[in-house]
Amino acid sequence: MSKMKAFAMLGPSEVGWIEVDRPVCGPFDAICRPLSVAACTSDIHTVYENGLGPRTDLVLGHEAVGEVIEVGPLVKDFKPGDKILVAAVTPNWSSAQAQDGYSMHSDQPLGGFKFANTKAGSFAEFFHVNDADGNMAHLPEGMDVGVGAMLADMIPTGFHGAELAEIKFGDTVCVVGIGPVGLMAVRGAVLHGASRVFGVGTRQNCVDLAKTYGATDIINYKNGPIDQQILELTNGLGVDKVILAGGTNDVFVQAVKMVKPGGIIANLIYLDSGDYIQIPRIEWGLGMGHKTIRGGLMPGGRRRLERLASLVTTGRVDPGLMITHKYHGLDKVDEMLQIMHDKPADLIKPVTII
Amino acid sequence: MSKMKAFAMLGPSEVGWIEVDRPVCGPFDAICRPLSVAACTSDIHTVYENGLGPRTDLVLGHEAVGEVIEVGPLVKDFKPGDKILVAAVTPNWSSAQAQDGYSMHSDQPLGGFKFANTKAGSFAEFFHVNDADGNMAHLPEGMDVGVGAMLADMIPTGFHGAELAEIKFGDTVCVVGIGPVGLMAVRGAVLHGASRVFGVGTRQNCVDLAKTYGATDIINYKNGPIDQQILELTNGLGVDKVILAGGTNDVFVQAVKMVKPGGIIANLIYLDSGDYIQIPRIEWGLGMGHKTIRGGLMPGGRRRLERLASLVTTGRVDPGLMITHKYHGLDKVDEMLQIMHDKPADLIKPVTII
Amino acid sequence: MSKMKAFAMLGPSEVGWIEVDRPVCGPFDAICRPLSVAACTSDIHTVYENGLGPRTDLVLGHEAVGEVIEVGPLVKDFKPGDKILVAAVTPNWSSAQAQDGYSMHSDQPLGGFKFANTKAGSFAEFFHVNDADGNMAHLPEGMDVGVGAMLADMIPTGFHGAELAEIKFGDTVCVVGIGPVGLMAVRGAVLHGASRVFGVGTRQNCVDLAKTYGATDIINYKNGPIDQQILELTNGLGVDKVILAGGTNDVFVQAVKMVKPGGIIANLIYLDSGDYIQIPRIEWGLGMGHKTIRGGLMPGGRRRLERLASLVTTGRVDPGLMITHKYHGLDKVDEMLQIMHDKPADLIKPVTII
Amino acid sequence: MSKMKAFAMLGPSEVGWIEVDRPVCGPFDAICRPLSVAACTSDIHTVYENGLGPRTDLVLGHEAVGEVIEVGPLVKDFKPGDKILVAAVTPNWSSAQAQDGYSMHSDQPLGGFKFANTKAGSFAEFFHVNDADGNMAHLPEGMDVGVGAMLADMIPTGFHGAELAEIKFGDTVCVVGIGPVGLMAVRGAVLHGASRVFGVGTRQNCVDLAKTYGATDIINYKNGPIDQQILELTNGLGVDKVILAGGTNDVFVQAVKMVKPGGIIANLIYLDSGDYIQIPRIEWGLGMGHKTIRGGLMPGGRRRLERLASLVTTGRVDPGLMITHKYHGLDKVDEMLQIMHDKPADLIKPVTII
Repeated sequence: MSKMKAFAMLGPSEVGWIEVDRPVCGPFDAICRPLSVAACTSDIHTVYENGLGPRTDLVLGHEAVGEVIEVGPLVKDFKPGDKILVAAVTPNWSSAQAQDGYSMHSDQPLGGFKFANTKAGSFAEFFHVNDADGNMAHLPEGMDVGVGAMLADMIPTGFHGAELAEIKFGDTVCVVGIGPVGLMAVRGAVLHGASRVFGVGTRQNCVDLAKTYGATDIINYKNGPIDQQILELTNGLGVDKVILAGGTNDVFVQAVKMVKPGGIIANLIYLDSGDYIQIPRIEWGLGMGHKTIRGGLMPGGRRRLERLASLVTTGRVDPGLMITHKYHGLDKVDEMLQIMHDKPADLIKPVTII
Repeated sequence: MSKMKAFAMLGPSEVGWIEVDRPVCGPFDAICRPLSVAACTSDIHTVYENGLGPRTDLVLGHEAVGEVIEVGPLVKDFKPGDKILVAAVTPNWSSAQAQDGYSMHSDQPLGGFKFANTKAGSFAEFFHVNDADGNMAHLPEGMDVGVGAMLADMIPTGFHGAELAEIKFGDTVCVVGIGPVGLMAVRGAVLHGASRVFGVGTRQNCVDLAKTYGATDIINYKNGPIDQQILELTNGLGVDKVILAGGTNDVFVQAVKMVKPGGIIANLIYLDSGDYIQIPRIEWGLGMGHKTIRGGLMPGGRRRLERLASLVTTGRVDPGLMITHKYHGLDKVDEMLQIMHDKPADLIKPVTII
Repeated sequence: MSKMKAFAMLGPSEVGWIEVDRPVCGPFDAICRPLSVAACTSDIHTVYENGLGPRTDLVLGHEAVGEVIEVGPLVKDFKPGDKILVAAVTPNWSSAQAQDGYSMHSDQPLGGFKFANTKAGSFAEFFHVNDADGNMAHLPEGMDVGVGAMLADMIPTGFHGAELAEIKFGDTVCVVGIGPVGLMAVRGAVLHGASRVFGVGTRQNCVDLAKTYGATDIINYKNGPIDQQILELTNGLGVDKVILAGGTNDVFVQAVKMVKPGGIIANLIYLDSGDYIQIPRIEWGLGMGHKTIRGGLMPGGRRRLERLASLVTTGRVDPGLMITHKYHGLDKVDEMLQIMHDKPADLIKPVTII
Repeated sequence: MSKMKAFAMLGPSEVGWIEVDRPVCGPFDAICRPLSVAACTSDIHTVYENGLGPRTDLVLGHEAVGEVIEVGPLVKDFKPGDKILVAAVTPNWSSAQAQDGYSMHSDQPLGGFKFANTKAGSFAEFFHVNDADGNMAHLPEGMDVGVGAMLADMIPTGFHGAELAEIKFGDTVCVVGIGPVGLMAVRGAVLHGASRVFGVGTRQNCVDLAKTYGATDIINYKNGPIDQQILELTNGLGVDKVILAGGTNDVFVQAVKMVKPGGIIANLIYLDSGDYIQIPRIEWGLGMGHKTIRGGLMPGGRRRLERLASLVTTGRVDPGLMITHKYHGLDKVDEMLQIMHDKPADLIKPVTII
C-alpha cells in the first residue's frame, strides 16, 4: 500500500507530520488532493482541549477544496481532474437517520463527521470522500479555492443556526459570538428574514464584519450580562431567537433569560467540557414557556454544498471577507494551525492554498 | 356589587369558603355558573407547594363546564341558558403573542392562564369568561358535563404533548408519568401516529388505562433508571420522542439519554421547585445532537375546544374512563380537592357535578 | 350623524367624490384621518374590471398611514394624535379562522379584507379601524408616511409570496410579474434565502429595480414561453419555487411546467375572470409530482405590521424605491387613481401625501 | 446469463408469461424471490389504460414480500435466507432529490418508481432491489407475508395522503374513493388526528371496512355532487382537508368547492388521461383562498417500511382486513390480475402467496 505525508494530532496538545497509508477508493468513492484547506476552532478543540478524547496520529483537517485524482467505478458525475467542494460532514445517505432527515447522524450520533474523526482528514497529500456523487459538488466556475473552503464548515454551520432558529420575517435575533461561525450565523439570519440582529463580541475586526454582514447592534459582554443588555434594548421583551456561536455552557442561562416565550435557542457551540448545561427554571416559564432549546451538527452532502455555493455565486454572502490570513503550500498547515491556536487580534479565518 | 360564595386558597396550605364579589361582564364577555368542575394536580401545587407563590383568598378551579347566565352586548354566538365548554387557558386573541402563534402567552408569559391565577377560578357560584365568542364552545349535544370538564385541561394539555413532540407515523414514544395528563399524552401520541408507546408508571389503574389508551409497553421506574430500561428495550437506539408528564427536574437527564438524535423532548410538567433543569452534555451530543427540548402551556380558546371535543364525540378518545370519583353539588369541591391531595391508590381524576 | 367627503367607485368604471356618514367608533376601534394613501392595481380591478362585482358608492382605498382621531374606551395602546400604520387586511382575531392560523379569512373567506370591500376605504376624510390594538401599529420614528403606506399591502403581499413558497437557503425562484407586488416578492425571496431569482417582466424601470432588489436574471416573456426560457437557463431542471405576481390564469400552466418535483407555486394574483385555472396533467407528474399549488390573501394585523416595518427600519428592504409618483392633498386621489389606470411607462407606484 | 419465468405486459391490453434474464446483483443490491405478491389498480392502468404508455414485455408487479437469495459484497444488514419487506418505491438515496427531501423523485420525476416501470417487477421467479440496506426491511417476526405485501404500496400511499393533508387534531377530512388506497387514507387520517372522516364510496364491503377503519360518515356520490353533500353536512363550512383516492380529473373541482380556506387537497390518484386538471376560480377564492392543492407519489425506502410496519405490529392498523382474495403459487398471478381487471363486487384486495 502506497504512503503519503499528512499533518496529524500526534497526541494531546501535540501535532506534527507523519507518514500514513494513502486512502483507498471504494466503488462509489473518490480520492482527491487538496487545493485549499482551512483550519477551524474545532481543530484546536481536538488537539488542545480533548474535544474528541485522547487520539494519536489523527490526520487533521475537515475544510478543503480538492481536485479529483481517482473515482470508483460506480461514480457517475465526477472524473479525475474535476475541482470539487466537499463538506466537513459526508453522510451515508442510505442510513436510517438520513432517511429520517438527520443525515449528519447517519449510522451513529454525529456519524456524518468523518474527516479528522473516524478517518483521516484533509491536511494530507490525498483525502478520501465516501459516496462521491452524494457528497461532492463541482467547484463553481470562477470561485476562488480559498473562498470554496468556507463552504466546508463555516457557511453550513453558521447558516444552520438560522435554520435551527426557524427565523421568520421581522424576527429579532441575538447571535452570541462573532467569530467565523457567528459571522455566518449573522448573515444566515439576515438571509432568512431577521430584522434587528444583535451580535455579541468585542474584537474590532469581527465587530466591523458583523455589521457588514447585517448586524444592527453590537453587544459587548464586558459591559454586563448579555441578557440584561438585550432586555434593556428591547423594552424588556427580549428577542425572538438566539443563536449560540461562542461561549461556554453558562451562556444557555443567559439565552433562556433573553428569549421570548415561543422563541428558539439554536446552539452551534461544540460543548467540550462540563457535565451539564443548565436551564434556569423560572425564566424557562416553569417548563411552560415554549422556549425551545436545540443544537445540532451542520447538514452536509452535495445538495447542501450546491445550495450554499449558489448563495456565494449570486452574491448573497461573501465569505471571503472572513479570510484574514492566507498561506501557500501544504507544508504551511502547521503554521496555519499555530495561528488558530495563538489567535492574534487580527485573525478571523486562515486558509492555505496548495 | 353583589356577592357570591367561592372556594379559595386562603393562604399557603389552607383552603376554605369565602364570600367575594360576583364577577362583572364586559362587552365581549360572559358570566357562567358551573355545571361541573374538576380538580387538578396543579390546584394542589398552587395550594400546598407554592406553585404560584404565596396567595391569599384566591378562588380556585380552572376546569369547568358552565351554563351562560349573562353575555356582553357584543357577544354574537352565545346567549343565557347555553351550555358551554371553556378551557383553562382563555387568551387575548388580539395580543402580539397570539398573532405570533403563542396565544397562551398573550400579554405576558403564561398570560392566557387566568382562572385561579390572575382572576377568580370556577369553584364558585359564578365565573367570568373573557372574550366569550373566542374562548367558549357550545357543549356538544349529548356530551356528559363531567366528560366535558376533561376538555378544559386534561385533553388539551396531554394532546399538546403530542404536538410539541411533532409525532410522525411510526414514531416510538416514551410518556413519563401516566396520571391524567400522561394518559391523555399516550392517547394523543397514538392519535398522531405513534407506534410503540412506553408508559412510565406504577399505579395499577393507571397502567391498565394507559394500555387501553394505546400504550404498548409499561415501564416501572422502580426497576431501574428509565433511560436504561428504554435503551435495553430498543436495542440501544432509544425512542424518537419523549413526553414528560410526571417527575421532577431530574427526569430531563433521563429523557436526553433515551431520545435519539433528531428526537424531541416535550415537557408538560409544571416545574415548581429548583433553580435549574439540567441537560447532560455528552448525551446531548456535545450540543450537536439535534435533541430538541421544549415545553409549553396548553393552547386554549374556542377552536381548540371544538377540535378536541370533536375527537370525543367521534369516539377517538374517551376521557370519561379517567373519572374515578364523582361528587354532586358545589359544596363538595372541598372534598374533591382533599382527595386530590390525599391521592388514594384508586384515584385518577375526580369531578363534581353541580 | 356627521358626514364626510370620500372618493368612491360610483358604479362600474365610474369614480367620483361623494358625501357619506363619518364612521362610528366601537369600544375596541379607532377612527383615523389619512396621512398618506396609495393606489393599488386592485383598485383598478375593483372599478374597471368587476373585481368585486358591481358596486355603487363604494369608498375606495386600502393602503394608508393615519393619525388617530378617536379611540374606543377599551383601546389600550393608542390615543388621539398617534401616527399609525394599518394593513389592508384587518382580521377579527377571535374568529375560528384566526385561531386556526388563517386570520385573513376571519368570519368568511377573505373576511379580513374589509377596507373598500365590506366597509368604506381610506380615500376619505376619516377611516375606521376594527380592533385598534390588534390591527394598528405605531409609525416607527422617522419613517416617511409615503414609505409607511407600502406596509399596507405591497410589502405584506409580496413577502407572503416568499412565505407561501417556503423558500429555503439556495432555492432558485421565478417571480412572474415585477410590478410593485412582484418587486416585493423578489425582495422577500432574497430575504428568505433564495439564490438565483428570475424576474419576469419587460418595463425598464421595473427591470432595473428588480435587479436592485436582488433578481439575478430577467426574463422577457416576449422572447418565448417563460417555462421554456427557464428550462433552458437551468439545464432542464426548472426552478425550486415560482411566485405568481402577474399574468392571467394561463400562467399556472407555465408555472407547473417550470417548477421541479417537490416545488411550490405561490399565487399572489387576484384572479378576476375565467371559470377555471388549469393544471397540465403530464407536467404535474400525473398527480404524483409533489408540485404544490397554493395562493392566498396577505396576512394582516399589528404584529405583521411591526415585523415588516422592522425590516424597513433596519434597511433590509427599501420600498421607497418603488414610489415613482407623489401627490399632495386628499383631493389628488382621483389623479392618483387615474395614473394607475393609465399606467404610463415610468409608473411603478404612486402615493398621495395628505 | 441465466433465465427466469416472469409474468408481463406483452403489449397494450395483453399479458402473459415470458422468459427473461435473471436480474444481476450490484455491490449494494439484493436479489430476492417473492414470498407473496399483490396486484394493484395501477397494474390495470399500466396494462389496459396506457398508464405508462405503450410497453412490451414489461414484467409486472410492485407489491411483494421476498426472501433474499443473494446480496452484493457491500450490503451490511441482510444475508441470503432473510425474509424482507420492500416498497414499490426504491429511491437512490444519494440523489439530489432525496437530499432535498423528495426521494421518490430521485434522479428524475417519479424516479423511485422502478419496479414494473424502469426495471422488471416482482411477478417473477426473482426480483432485484437496488440499495438493499436502504430499501429493504426485515419482515417483522410473526407478520403474515400477505399482510406484509400491503406495506409495499397500499399503506404507504394511503398514509401519505394524511401526510400531504397535514392533518391536525380535530380536522374534518373527506376521503374520496374507498378502495384499498382510500381505506388506508381513512385509517391514516384517523391515526393523524382527524375527528370526523367522510368516506365517499358505494360498494358495501368497502363502506363497512371504511367504518371499521374510522370513517364516521359515508357519502354516496350517486345521491348528488359530493361537495353539496359535504356542505350540507357541515353547515356550509366544508371540511378542513380532502384526500383524493378515487375519481377522475373532475373530482378536483368538487374538492376545491368543499374544502375550507386554509385547507389542503391531497391527491393520491394516478391521473392517466386528459390534458388538464381544473381549479374552479371563484371557489378557489380568486386565487386568494389558501386552498393548497398537491399530490405525490408515496415515499419508499427502509425507514418508511420500518415505521409503517411498526404501526401494523402494534395494532394501529390492520391491513389484512382488506385482503378478500388469496391465491397460492406464482402461476396464479394471472388469475389475480384478472380479478383486479374484472373487479367483482366482493373484491377489495387480492394477494398471492408463493
